[in-house]
Amino acid sequence: MDGAVSKRIVVNDTLNAFCKDTDAYLEGAPNGPLSGLTFAAKDIYDVAGHVTGGGNPDWKRTHGPATKTSWIVRVLVEAGATMVGKTHTDELTRGIAGENVHYGTPVNPRAPGRVPGGSSSGSASAVAGGLVDFALGSDTGGSVRIPASFCGLYGLRPTHNRIVLDGIMYQAPGYDTIGWFTRDAETFARVGEVALQTTIGGALPSRIVIAEDAFEVADPRVSKALRPAVEKVTSLIGPSRSERLSPNGLDEWSHQQQVLQGREAWETAGEWIEKTNPRFSFEVSLRYMSARGLSAQDVEEAKATRKTILARMSEVLKDGTVVCLPTAPVPAPLTGRRLSVRQAIGRDLTKLTCIAGTLSAPQINLPLAELDGLPVGLSLLGPRGSDEMLIATARKLAASG
Amino acid sequence: MDGAVSKRIVVNDTLNAFCKDTDAYLEGAPNGPLSGLTFAAKDIYDVAGHVTGGGNPDWKRTHGPATKTSWIVRVLVEAGATMVGKTHTDELTRGIAGENVHYGTPVNPRAPGRVPGGSSSGSASAVAGGLVDFALGSDTGGSVRIPASFCGLYGLRPTHNRIVLDGIMYQAPGYDTIGWFTRDAETFARVGEVALQTTIGGALPSRIVIAEDAFEVADPRVSKALRPAVEKVTSLIGPSRSERLSPNGLDEWSHQQQVLQGREAWETAGEWIEKTNPRFSFEVSLRYMSARGLSAQDVEEAKATRKTILARMSEVLKDGTVVCLPTAPVPAPLTGRRLSVRQAIGRDLTKLTCIAGTLSAPQINLPLAELDGLPVGLSLLGPRGSDEMLIATARKLAASG
Repeated sequence: MDGAVSKRIVVNDTLNAFCKDTDAYLEGAPNGPLSGLTFAAKDIYDVAGHVTGGGNPDWKRTHGPATKTSWIVRVLVEAGATMVGKTHTDELTRGIAGENVHYGTPVNPRAPGRVPGGSSSGSASAVAGGLVDFALGSDTGGSVRIPASFCGLYGLRPTHNRIVLDGIMYQAPGYDTIGWFTRDAETFARVGEVALQTTIGGALPSRIVIAEDAFEVADPRVSKALRPAVEKVTSLIGPSRSERLSPNGLDEWSHQQQVLQGREAWETAGEWIEKTNPRFSFEVSLRYMSARGLSAQDVEEAKATRKTILARMSEVLKDGTVVCLPTAPVPAPLTGRRLSVRQAIGRDLTKLTCIAGTLSAPQINLPLAELDGLPVGLSLLGPRGSDEMLIATARKLAASG
Repeated sequence: MDGAVSKRIVVNDTLNAFCKDTDAYLEGAPNGPLSGLTFAAKDIYDVAGHVTGGGNPDWKRTHGPATKTSWIVRVLVEAGATMVGKTHTDELTRGIAGENVHYGTPVNPRAPGRVPGGSSSGSASAVAGGLVDFALGSDTGGSVRIPASFCGLYGLRPTHNRIVLDGIMYQAPGYDTIGWFTRDAETFARVGEVALQTTIGGALPSRIVIAEDAFEVADPRVSKALRPAVEKVTSLIGPSRSERLSPNGLDEWSHQQQVLQGREAWETAGEWIEKTNPRFSFEVSLRYMSARGLSAQDVEEAKATRKTILARMSEVLKDGTVVCLPTAPVPAPLTGRRLSVRQAIGRDLTKLTCIAGTLSAPQINLPLAELDGLPVGLSLLGPRGSDEMLIATARKLAASG
């Protein structure tokens, strides 16, 4: 302690990325590995003394202040990073567009007039707009990967439970993961070493599978725009082959994920919804209602499908293999689209994001391409526990220019 | 014109009955049959220059001011009644409890801590609390009859299209009707002569059917509390008999009504919902989502059931016969009940309210009983066009003390 009074960092939020109704702020410890960095936390992370809002005013109204700060936030602050505020999220993290009907849509600085992606919308917006150095999101069904792709950021869905799910608002605990965004791979790795309590070394995947059926889900122009990035990745890693992951199509894969994640989401929030009759956007109510209406047979069938996916993918991901796929089938859609259009986009997105969720496996978005000036992300998906390898690959690719 | 400046009547709304975000006000013409009376209009009636809010902030936000005043409001004002304001409604009239998650629950002055009933919640509250002499509601699936029963008021669902549906927010035009509330039968008839453009004479029904299956839907304590009122009605009218209306139970009857009304409700609001993704309570979204999910077969089956109901009831209602039934199976429920409880209550309510809606027939609530100090209403349901006869019966019963 040298007696200096530290000055509170005030962000000029021109992007509607930050929650206006909380002043949660935690100054980073001095001389840590993350000292000098600022970050924002999606408003699902508890900060002692502040109500976690979860993107819904009725959630906020019916909950008291958190009594302790979530593990990941504490670890980052202890490592020197300063948390400057909390960021908007889709309601109860149930969305992939980032359009919150209560708090508005954070700006996508890389694609004006288009959605930032969700549910970690404010975090992605804040990082992409340079308001903070990094930001915490969470990824249950795609909520880090999608906004990373739409906003042109690095973003990781880690191995499930790799980062302890302490002090966060759950959506579906069997699928919830803690992830983060940065603009560059170096910072990404630097945060990763703290968040994952690890060292990011130089080990790279030994082979790569290009997921044909995943590329077929994407808009052909997206697949084409990603081609140079795919070539860059394959030339870095070496042995590659093209393969279809799903014998019966990715529709079946995303369906089982929606059933099993949906069931958990209803188990998590259903009691509160039944009691509170909260204000949701119609779209969010639709999601919960589908989940509420699931039968035991739906769940059993989904579990059976999941088993076949796990078997199939453990075959694909053996011996240091990673899978390469588009993160999202489209660039960021325009804001304010019709519900039916939004639902169609959502269905396609889920076909690509469901794989990592089902496997509890890590997936990183690499912001290596553009289509008509809009970011489109390429993903690498590895076996459980390969988080370091994915981050190392991202860093190596970035370093190679 | 005598040059006198008339003074604007200001209501001290201690009941959260009135909309705070509109100052719609129309002074009654001098020397009309309704001069000296004040009234309020549910916020689904257009008043030129004001936005009709329909109980939902996103509806209000996405619509401009009305260009003309609805027919019924003009007729009442021209007849001398002064419209002092607009009252709360369930969102888009899709509710029967009167608990609006955006604007709060109007107080039920006759049953503190309990719901006023809906969707014409503010109108019933304002009349029951003596804030106005009468108030306009609307009744699509029970939205006048239910709050009349819960708040101890006279209330009519008129013959469908008997009052022209001009300048109102539709829920389901094939079922929407314009009704009103008063505390006493005299004022009820006085307003009725203007609203229905008619004379309320002395003609009474010639016989009465006690709907056994409807009384079986009601809580036995409600049926018991209504017995003296039933006796009073039967002794006034004369020949009575008990009968089951529905050969297969009222469940089947309410189901077809929910399907056909729901389909119309989705046809009416669906495009706006798809485009706007509005904030609704979860419960209201549930209603619209069920409607959205209806198949052509659901609709065909409901239409077939409706045909059998129409045939059955034209048999029952012949030769000046009216049907006597409980308006609601329970007194006003407590506010803030769980969704599953609310839905169960709603299902029972609909078994009783569906009959008039299906027949396009009039039904009047008579506030003639109490259970544990809470109002419970008795209904008379007559054939199409028997509105005057029902009102005359209410007046005669009241006069007989």
